[in-house]
Amino acid sequence: MADYVIGIDLGGTFIKAGVVDKQGKSLARTSVETEVKKGHETVVTNICRAADIVRDEAGLSWHDIIGIGIGAPGTLDIKNGVVLLSPNLPCLNEMPLRQLVAEKVPVPVVLENDANAAAWGEKWVGAGRGVNSLVMFTLGTGIGGGIILDNRIWHGANDVAAEIGHMSVFAYGVKCACGNLGCIEAYASATGMIRRMKEAIQEGKPSLLAEKVKNGEEFLAKDIHDAALQGDKTAEEIIVETGRLLGVAATNMMHILNPDMIVFSGGMINAGDMLLHPIKEEVNKRAFPASREKCQIVFAELGGDAGFIGAAGCALTEFETSA
Amino acid sequence: MADYVIGIDLGGTFIKAGVVDKQGKSLARTSVETEVKKGHETVVTNICRAADIVRDEAGLSWHDIIGIGIGAPGTLDIKNGVVLLSPNLPCLNEMPLRQLVAEKVPVPVVLENDANAAAWGEKWVGAGRGVNSLVMFTLGTGIGGGIILDNRIWHGANDVAAEIGHMSVFAYGVKCACGNLGCIEAYASATGMIRRMKEAIQEGKPSLLAEKVKNGEEFLAKDIHDAALQGDKTAEEIIVETGRLLGVAATNMMHILNPDMIVFSGGMINAGDMLLHPIKEEVNKRAFPASREKCQIVFAELGGDAGFIGAAGCALTEFETSA
Repeated sequence: MADYVIGIDLGGTFIKAGVVDKQGKSLARTSVETEVKKGHETVVTNICRAADIVRDEAGLSWHDIIGIGIGAPGTLDIKNGVVLLSPNLPCLNEMPLRQLVAEKVPVPVVLENDANAAAWGEKWVGAGRGVNSLVMFTLGTGIGGGIILDNRIWHGANDVAAEIGHMSVFAYGVKCACGNLGCIEAYASATGMIRRMKEAIQEGKPSLLAEKVKNGEEFLAKDIHDAALQGDKTAEEIIVETGRLLGVAATNMMHILNPDMIVFSGGMINAGDMLLHPIKEEVNKRAFPASREKCQIVFAELGGDAGFIGAAGCALTEFETSA
Repeated sequence: MADYVIGIDLGGTFIKAGVVDKQGKSLARTSVETEVKKGHETVVTNICRAADIVRDEAGLSWHDIIGIGIGAPGTLDIKNGVVLLSPNLPCLNEMPLRQLVAEKVPVPVVLENDANAAAWGEKWVGAGRGVNSLVMFTLGTGIGGGIILDNRIWHGANDVAAEIGHMSVFAYGVKCACGNLGCIEAYASATGMIRRMKEAIQEGKPSLLAEKVKNGEEFLAKDIHDAALQGDKTAEEIIVETGRLLGVAATNMMHILNPDMIVFSGGMINAGDMLLHPIKEEVNKRAFPASREKCQIVFAELGGDAGFIGAAGCALTEFETSA
């Protein structure tokens, strides 16, 4: 009897894959290059190769596998398993990815948006275990999102829901890469935080990163946190302000959806309480008590594994009843 | 066989009631005073009296009635049918309203939030007929909301979802009555629009309403629209700006939930295209094409009847299968 699922986290540079049991425990994981420039056939081959590697490493045969879940970035037609538009994987645009993979493996395949898959991972076996509804903000170069309502991923009318990074919190604020004004992503993503840090230094605020800015050197969100830990007050203020703005966005999500939990994930959560404390403080100032008292605000627990674990979980949900 | 439902729209001043058939057609309607100052027993008696009046006017016996739906304002425990906190109906705070009414009528009773009920009315037989998901903004003294997802009202973790008027679109904007900063309600409700109109006049902008402001006289949102129709450019700018800000809020809802439809209701929609045009224009500038192209933006169709029709619809949904 088949008791395992394979999850694929398809990125622009790497494909992460893992074998997961029905309780969400990972038995094996691997990472292979996506090789996006070699075209869609190579990418599909690499997905199948990654799946085969982890199946083999877990000591399983294909008979043990219920199905494969693929979390992919971009705009998808989930029902039909098609990638519509993926800026990081242009070779897959308009490709029936689910079918292309399914033709090469002896198990069924489901396609899911990567941010939704990660949210599902946290809901299944991470920070959101046991809750009915959650909203996840994934803080990276941009801000991605996933919304789980009543134990199901909310996809929206045509599978583009949960673009919560593109909620405007400054109606006439800075222009976001998406074209909208004042998106939370433009302020509180790693990119947005770095922009604000550079601006603070250019306004003359003292910082350990001032020299880099003067020399036109780039730095990372992590460098801002490191500077703050070394006593850089400007860096600390930038992180605290990032938390406050995420608190505004979290309050909006509470007022709109009244979820059981709001989860923050992505590399930026390494800033720990320096980020989480102002998020909570802002929510306490702003949110309706009835919403706030019910809603936990937490950091994600699965780190970089959330994507493939969640994708595997989507396959389990999709195929278990029919297995 | 029971084929009709009674809907109650419980307001701070009036109780509207109506008999509705299974297709959502109103057979009779009435309005009685709530008499909130006389206490909860009187309010309950008046609800039952209103229900009895419309049943009688429709020429029906209680055997023809499937159940009663009550749409009530405030924070509710919907599952248990209890009013937790209702600023406009303080005598009902912590009262088991569903049970109190059910004890006095021979049919089952369901309690729903009034804004959710109105959204359900529009979804059932109004502007939202046939859609799977919609978000409704009710523009009045404040901004209320209702969210329908997958043909069901989304209540949230503890029945306080859809407070979309308290989505902040100016993170550090004006203080809203709720305590949060920059809520869309503080700018684009009737109250918010009147505040901005007064400010524009006080800043020296010319307006037909300038004399009123100088004399400390109050005016209504309708007066701003009337002035605009008489060529008052400042009044027109205030309405257009209200539309733009509602467009920002609508874009946020599209990015978060990707609904089939966004509906605007309430007295302010009498401003017609002067309000709707800038809403759509702003959405066209800001929203992701994939979300925007799928989402209709419309005005509500049921007017003041949406509340009781939707409440009746909730009773039908709740009790029809068990009838």
